Amino acid sequence: MQAEIITIGDEILIGQIVDTNSAFISKELNKIGVSVYQITSVQDERSHILRALSEANARSQVVIITGGLGPTKDDVTKQTLAEYFGDTLIKNETVLKHIEYLFAKYISTPISDLNRQQAMVLSKGQVLHNQYGTAPGMWIEKNGTSFVSLPGVPFEMKGLITKEVLPRIIEKYERPHIIHKSIMTYGLGESAIAEKIEAWENNLPKELKLAYLPSLGRVRLRISTKGHNEAYLRQLVNDEVKKLYPLIGDIIYGEEEDESIEAGIGKLLTQKSKTLATAESFTGGKIAQQITAIPGASNYFKGTVVSYATETKIQVLGVDPSLIEKHSVVSEAVAVAMARSVKEMLGTDFAIATTGNAGPTKGDSEEPVGTAFIAISTPTQTFAKKFTLGNHRERIVQKGVNKAFELLQKEILNF
Amino acid sequence: MQAEIITIGDEILIGQIVDTNSAFISKELNKIGVSVYQITSVQDERSHILRALSEANARSQVVIITGGLGPTKDDVTKQTLAEYFGDTLIKNETVLKHIEYLFAKYISTPISDLNRQQAMVLSKGQVLHNQYGTAPGMWIEKNGTSFVSLPGVPFEMKGLITKEVLPRIIEKYERPHIIHKSIMTYGLGESAIAEKIEAWENNLPKELKLAYLPSLGRVRLRISTKGHNEAYLRQLVNDEVKKLYPLIGDIIYGEEEDESIEAGIGKLLTQKSKTLATAESFTGGKIAQQITAIPGASNYFKGTVVSYATETKIQVLGVDPSLIEKHSVVSEAVAVAMARSVKEMLGTDFAIATTGNAGPTKGDSEEPVGTAFIAISTPTQTFAKKFTLGNHRERIVQKGVNKAFELLQKEILNF
Repeated sequence: MQAEIITIGDEILIGQIVDTNSAFISKELNKIGVSVYQITSVQDERSHILRALSEANARSQVVIITGGLGPTKDDVTKQTLAEYFGDTLIKNETVLKHIEYLFAKYISTPISDLNRQQAMVLSKGQVLHNQYGTAPGMWIEKNGTSFVSLPGVPFEMKGLITKEVLPRIIEKYERPHIIHKSIMTYGLGESAIAEKIEAWENNLPKELKLAYLPSLGRVRLRISTKGHNEAYLRQLVNDEVKKLYPLIGDIIYGEEEDESIEAGIGKLLTQKSKTLATAESFTGGKIAQQITAIPGASNYFKGTVVSYATETKIQVLGVDPSLIEKHSVVSEAVAVAMARSVKEMLGTDFAIATTGNAGPTKGDSEEPVGTAFIAISTPTQTFAKKFTLGNHRERIVQKGVNKAFELLQKEILNF
Repeated sequence: MQAEIITIGDEILIGQIVDTNSAFISKELNKIGVSVYQITSVQDERSHILRALSEANARSQVVIITGGLGPTKDDVTKQTLAEYFGDTLIKNETVLKHIEYLFAKYISTPISDLNRQQAMVLSKGQVLHNQYGTAPGMWIEKNGTSFVSLPGVPFEMKGLITKEVLPRIIEKYERPHIIHKSIMTYGLGESAIAEKIEAWENNLPKELKLAYLPSLGRVRLRISTKGHNEAYLRQLVNDEVKKLYPLIGDIIYGEEEDESIEAGIGKLLTQKSKTLATAESFTGGKIAQQITAIPGASNYFKGTVVSYATETKIQVLGVDPSLIEKHSVVSEAVAVAMARSVKEMLGTDFAIATTGNAGPTKGDSEEPVGTAFIAISTPTQTFAKKFTLGNHRERIVQKGVNKAFELLQKEILNF
């Protein structure tokens, strides 16, 4: 049982947008036991789409197609699908009513003929209701393969996958269980880890597949397996994970698939009824932004002061100017003062503060690009650590954010 | 002259990571006149990689392959390339020295045999120096097609594309000029725009291709063309762009390809020697984060207060509690007070403030999810506008950020 994804759109092939849809669809299909064999991005062009459909048809039982369903002339997916399936497009009254409803409720401009044409669907296919948009999804079968056409707008596509596509696949196909378990580590490179766990890796049961995924100072070890006896497979995976702890337990910071470290921190703070604030300089608000991206963050996150300029550290955070003069603005002392100050100002239990130089120029300090201090304030102490985070602006910031969460998580566990 | 991209890695096909490499590579290739015909994501699996290589070989002159070059057992790209090209892997002393140098300089763990194996390269290929990492790039030709193998780590891949791959393609191939020009609009849907510019679109010179790219309340109109007479093509595109203004000039906010609105704001502020601060509630620091992602932002951006909690609005920003009680925390009056306060606190010329409800629950206000007020403070006035931004948390935040930048840009132009 395998699926393929075909994404249609010149904007992907000229690099104007990043295809995030495929990752979402792949993850959702994996959850219900469907492996994705291949993802193919093709142009808004008839012959290219026809070839991709035909190749996917020969290989896979389910083909998910996204994009090219807009009302304008550059979108040709629907006509090309009709050609491939030897079908015609007919007007669907339910879809037309829905389009009229969306225009009446949400859109100030009057409905046009172009919009009405979005109610044209494949006559031999099933229509999939697109709650959030005017382009319906479609499901049609050929030579034993199910083809699903979805709009490329991410939140419309997501609604259709969740509400219309997954339930139909579950109903129609026998599927194995697919299990992925990730062990998140930090502080060691992939080859250093590989050496430490070499004997373990060589003795892994043949049903399990191991992958190393390095990223910004972290390595994720992913154990994957597939089969029909879910309980047996889970046991197999869990047994092997347990054996990892004596080998590399000191660098493991989490296990749960899909849980970001900031989501984990959110859960901890909620459980313990504790609150958090941040004072950010070189991270520019990115710590706050990652925290507030989690629903429910307002229960524990009180706010942040992004003191990008040195005078903001003085005026808003009340950092003593003589401290800055003595130690420089990128220093342990300033990081500690910022953390203490924001914790007090916002009346929280914990605080994070960052000061550093993300480059490309040196800014208000003599420290080299990449130097950063991250301070953590807890109910009982405040401390800062120095980091050297390389020389690439974007990576310096993201590494700094990661380090801050790692430091904070360890501290919260003590309260 | 066309290229293809093959990305190798199970992590893409199970949705564990989003493939951002392909968009970068496509954009860079387009800049030097190389069209990307197709992007194919395949598994870390010998036969699948072999098939993808052979299909791409039959279609395209350049094939860029990323991923699968790590030192651990799950990565099989190098061995598979050797098989495809009937080649063997040999140790390259220059690469080995570079690996040893990277370990001595940046990595605290000792170098291992696994790391040293990364110096094994195709004997018939050219080695491409990877300044930032241990896995070298490789360039090898077969049946008139150039194959380029690159590591999947984004910043390593980017360095190799820029410094090693593009110069070689420019040297080796005759290429046309590819021109993409984007007209950015807001406030109208794609079909409403299509109706307004129908006659213009029907009369476009046959060399030009038009695409509509809708996203979060904006539509980008992209005009693309390709050919050898660059001056002629640029003139053709510019002439057609000029004709758009009488038709939809009121909804166009920018023209430049690749320039984000916040980068444009940065340029304006720098030119005018003006400064900016933000006070953010429902946007959680995302405005500040997008601004500080631009190098040089410290010249004009002073900082932000993310007052996620109502008490932070009172304690840090000094918003009058009676104002909140009278108007609710999500109100025009509170947005205006926040903008005024942060502008004064940080001593800037301009300020943005946001207060709203991003959901999923109502929080500290009676306003429905999606309601937001965005305030702009300029050297001469402060005002706020009300927006209704839907009911999807992530989209509400991003739409709010977009609206804030649009409002601010208009105001800066007046000073």
